[in-house]
Amino acid sequence: MGDTTTWPAGPLAEKTVLDTGIPGLFAFGSTFESLIDALHASIGRLTADECAIRLGAPPVISRALLERVGYVESFPQLLGTVHTYEGDDRQWRELAPMLRSGGDWTLRHKLADVVLLPAACYHVYPQLAAAELAEPGIFDLTGHCYRHERSAEAGRMRSFRMRELVRVDSPAEALGWRDRWIERAAGWLRSLGLEVKVAPASDPFFGAGARMMGALQRAEQLKWELIVAVADGLQQAVLSCNCHKDHFSAEFEFRMRTGAAHTACVAFGLERIALAVLHKHGSDPQHWPEELMVVPGV
Amino acid sequence: MGDTTTWPAGPLAEKTVLDTGIPGLFAFGSTFESLIDALHASIGRLTADECAIRLGAPPVISRALLERVGYVESFPQLLGTVHTYEGDDRQWRELAPMLRSGGDWTLRHKLADVVLLPAACYHVYPQLAAAELAEPGIFDLTGHCYRHERSAEAGRMRSFRMRELVRVDSPAEALGWRDRWIERAAGWLRSLGLEVKVAPASDPFFGAGARMMGALQRAEQLKWELIVAVADGLQQAVLSCNCHKDHFSAEFEFRMRTGAAHTACVAFGLERIALAVLHKHGSDPQHWPEELMVVPGV
Repeated sequence: MGDTTTWPAGPLAEKTVLDTGIPGLFAFGSTFESLIDALHASIGRLTADECAIRLGAPPVISRALLERVGYVESFPQLLGTVHTYEGDDRQWRELAPMLRSGGDWTLRHKLADVVLLPAACYHVYPQLAAAELAEPGIFDLTGHCYRHERSAEAGRMRSFRMRELVRVDSPAEALGWRDRWIERAAGWLRSLGLEVKVAPASDPFFGAGARMMGALQRAEQLKWELIVAVADGLQQAVLSCNCHKDHFSAEFEFRMRTGAAHTACVAFGLERIALAVLHKHGSDPQHWPEELMVVPGV
Repeated sequence: MGDTTTWPAGPLAEKTVLDTGIPGLFAFGSTFESLIDALHASIGRLTADECAIRLGAPPVISRALLERVGYVESFPQLLGTVHTYEGDDRQWRELAPMLRSGGDWTLRHKLADVVLLPAACYHVYPQLAAAELAEPGIFDLTGHCYRHERSAEAGRMRSFRMRELVRVDSPAEALGWRDRWIERAAGWLRSLGLEVKVAPASDPFFGAGARMMGALQRAEQLKWELIVAVADGLQQAVLSCNCHKDHFSAEFEFRMRTGAAHTACVAFGLERIALAVLHKHGSDPQHWPEELMVVPGV
């Protein structure tokens, strides 16, 4: 907006992705938010037969939890830790002037007990700690996730919304459910008019063991990505279907009444799916697929 | 959940507020999320005549922005800064073992360019930088906010959702709008069956000048809070109506075509309003006020 001298409300409303001055961090205009609503409604219809339990997930999570499940060790480059001021009034009187002089006003900040949420489903597992499930558990939650991406590539947003379905079930059922969802999710993306590639994938592990970890994950076909065009000449994974085997059930000691529990999840990258829809159909909702018709007044 | 040995899906679905192991940080069950949806729908009807521009607001924001507008100086005790790993692979090989040994694995973390969002409306003002508005600007946005509260009091959540209406207008119109909203918002809370107290208030300024800043804000009646019971014997502000005068328009140099611009906002604390509804009417949606009727299938 900085380059306009006259500013009627229109232009901001019509813009879909708004610059925040920070690389990879965006705010969104009205049209984009309506599209996110329409995607939520569509995903709600798509997943209605799962009868999932909804969870509300805050965008921060226990640091100890992410240390415990191995996230910090495997993805230190993506994690945002949170720090808070632990000094007193008098000490702040000495630090506050540094806001103007350019000194380090965070000198008395200490590592807090929370970190930024990197994936929605981490909020599910601690709720299941030590439980014995009489029936499969299916959860539906949306998290504002943060990953400290260093790229300015479109769609590689540092802060983004991830809607996830998580299933806790016997090993065979969890895997079968994940497999069926690869097909269902691909069909859903096609119903939005998008061309979809399905490919085995691996997470962006960091450091020395990265290549081996990735190869192992790929060999076991634990992660599948659904890839579409989000901009000219740019394809990105917008959806992933994952099997965690006993990674979380072993750590939090939950099981099925009938035996071991495995977990699996389907993760919808909402901003990227929205970008793909905008790339394919444009920003006029009248040209969006029927599946995304915005019902007036809702 | 940790104390149950049998876990059918029911109990978790029925719980409204879920412990995360971190004081002041909660996840939420299905009923609570349905109530948040119903509140959003109701606020949408309440505010429809504003024809506001919706903005999508991420839960992090530019650190430089919060330094610039004085938030860091006034509220250092509430701010969560974000830090990220700035070492390489080899250095992480030395740090990773500290995850198990208890050493400081954040040794090579550096202050990032983003911080946790403390109030939704901070995402609005930079979008208006240097603009000259031909007509009033009205924005509607919801942010997941973080404030590093040290209290375990119910409702004093560290992470919470704030829906805000922000108006940019001439000084007289901005103030008049804020004043009218004190009445409208109180009427809306009463329509939910809640008893409301309206009181001038001040923000929780930190340090030496805190008392003076608060007194000044109160004397000018810039901030009004709407206070209701959120638990037995516990009243909290669930909604605030604020006038910022030229605090933001001066910093970001936006103005009305006809002269100076002031800003005002109405902020709905969604979790606290939900707690108040649950406290008053219970967790069975059938006993909630008609205004919060959940339309099936939406």
